[in-house]
Amino acid sequence: MDAKEVQTLLEELFPDSHEDVLVESVGNRSARVRLRVQPKHLRPGQTVSGPAIMALADTAMYVALLGELGPVTKAVTVSLGIHFLRRPRQVDLMAEAKLLKVGRRLAFGEISIAELEKPESPVAHATVSYALPAT
Amino acid sequence: MDAKEVQTLLEELFPDSHEDVLVESVGNRSARVRLRVQPKHLRPGQTVSGPAIMALADTAMYVALLGELGPVTKAVTVSLGIHFLRRPRQVDLMAEAKLLKVGRRLAFGEISIAELEKPESPVAHATVSYALPAT
Amino acid sequence: MDAKEVQTLLEELFPDSHEDVLVESVGNRSARVRLRVQPKHLRPGQTVSGPAIMALADTAMYVALLGELGPVTKAVTVSLGIHFLRRPRQVDLMAEAKLLKVGRRLAFGEISIAELEKPESPVAHATVSYALPAT
Amino acid sequence: MDAKEVQTLLEELFPDSHEDVLVESVGNRSARVRLRVQPKHLRPGQTVSGPAIMALADTAMYVALLGELGPVTKAVTVSLGIHFLRRPRQVDLMAEAKLLKVGRRLAFGEISIAELEKPESPVAHATVSYALPAT
Repeated sequence: MDAKEVQTLLEELFPDSHEDVLVESVGNRSARVRLRVQPKHLRPGQTVSGPAIMALADTAMYVALLGELGPVTKAVTVSLGIHFLRRPRQVDLMAEAKLLKVGRRLAFGEISIAELEKPESPVAHATVSYALPAT
Repeated sequence: MDAKEVQTLLEELFPDSHEDVLVESVGNRSARVRLRVQPKHLRPGQTVSGPAIMALADTAMYVALLGELGPVTKAVTVSLGIHFLRRPRQVDLMAEAKLLKVGRRLAFGEISIAELEKPESPVAHATVSYALPAT
Repeated sequence: MDAKEVQTLLEELFPDSHEDVLVESVGNRSARVRLRVQPKHLRPGQTVSGPAIMALADTAMYVALLGELGPVTKAVTVSLGIHFLRRPRQVDLMAEAKLLKVGRRLAFGEISIAELEKPESPVAHATVSYALPAT
Repeated sequence: MDAKEVQTLLEELFPDSHEDVLVESVGNRSARVRLRVQPKHLRPGQTVSGPAIMALADTAMYVALLGELGPVTKAVTVSLGIHFLRRPRQVDLMAEAKLLKVGRRLAFGEISIAELEKPESPVAHATVSYALPAT
């Protein structure tokens, strides 16, 4: 699936929240997904909330999987680990997911999350495992 | 702080989302926090979404810290690791957080999350680290 | 398998290192495994090394699985997460593993590691996932 | 510190095990460290053991920190998370550590571990946090 197809699929699956994220690119075992930061994503201190960043990491990994495998909508998150590195400002964030393994049953990737203009100073780093549906 | 004081503090800090969680108990280096599941917490398949469960885990740890240390509102999440173990039904979830270390700079705890009536079959297990403000 | 049977199996599988650990108890989805601390497990500062503690955590989880499932010797570690909480003294350590999920394909557990006499002050806490062989 | 200085320091700190690892390069917030696989690092199935790989990941992060900060020998591991992705053959492994954050108190990095000739197919991926001594 390409970026446009994935975006359309997210709109069907998550009609309430699909406007939060923009699939910027997909392919080559990776994906870039943008969080369009809105008031609901913020927390005191004019920063983006941890849960909003965790949701973005999980979505970016899911998008990378859809790009690699096609519409495996039944893939589910098995585990997620995240480290918060810097306090983001109240701006859009970009998540860059890279698939490090896509097995028959399990997929694993890492995700770097940064402010839109500052990819070299990530605000968070995550690793995510997904269980893949039997085919 | 006791459960009622923590609940009041959450209402002040997070006016938009405080109704999502109910602080059931606090004390003895632990806390129990209930997620009042609402449509926004669901995802396809009539289950509670991963991000909603991650947010609950983070909140339960924060509540346990407030109970132990008082209003350290500037404590921030450093890292979170979560494993999803079973698919929850569309019911309220209870998170039980236990503090395993509270140092001068860092605190660490584990959180078990289960359906309200089924604490023995957790749907997820998390570990969370917080950085504590200098005092 | 009971504690004695597991100990015998470890001796067969790991002839070089089985004397490092003592299976104290197994059963009820849990296990207690003791690290007999030796010079090779130490590091500067008269403390037990991190790698020795990580190996103990992994072994304790494996022992709990053997106790629960029988000789599934082909089970392999998928992921391990560990937090070091306190600096242990140069004494034997006890790991207590609890299985939180044993599925068809994946098992997950948590392990608390403490000095022998001080279970209430863990020196480390780990979570471990194992992939189970198809049966 | 450069690669040679770090190697010499490891020999002083860990006289028993320094021959296990070879510091290949250090600098630019990263490090490459080679595990010279020996019989003690193996486990049944002619593969490198999980604990040997975990120790390598931890060492590679430590080496990267020494390269960045100088001889901060009192830096200690706070947490380590590792995912095992492929079963390595019985050959030397190379760990490549990248520092993603070096703060005043905490440092965080990621480590990719692969067979010597196959960096594009990692056998494991780790993230490690270190606490830095007050200066």
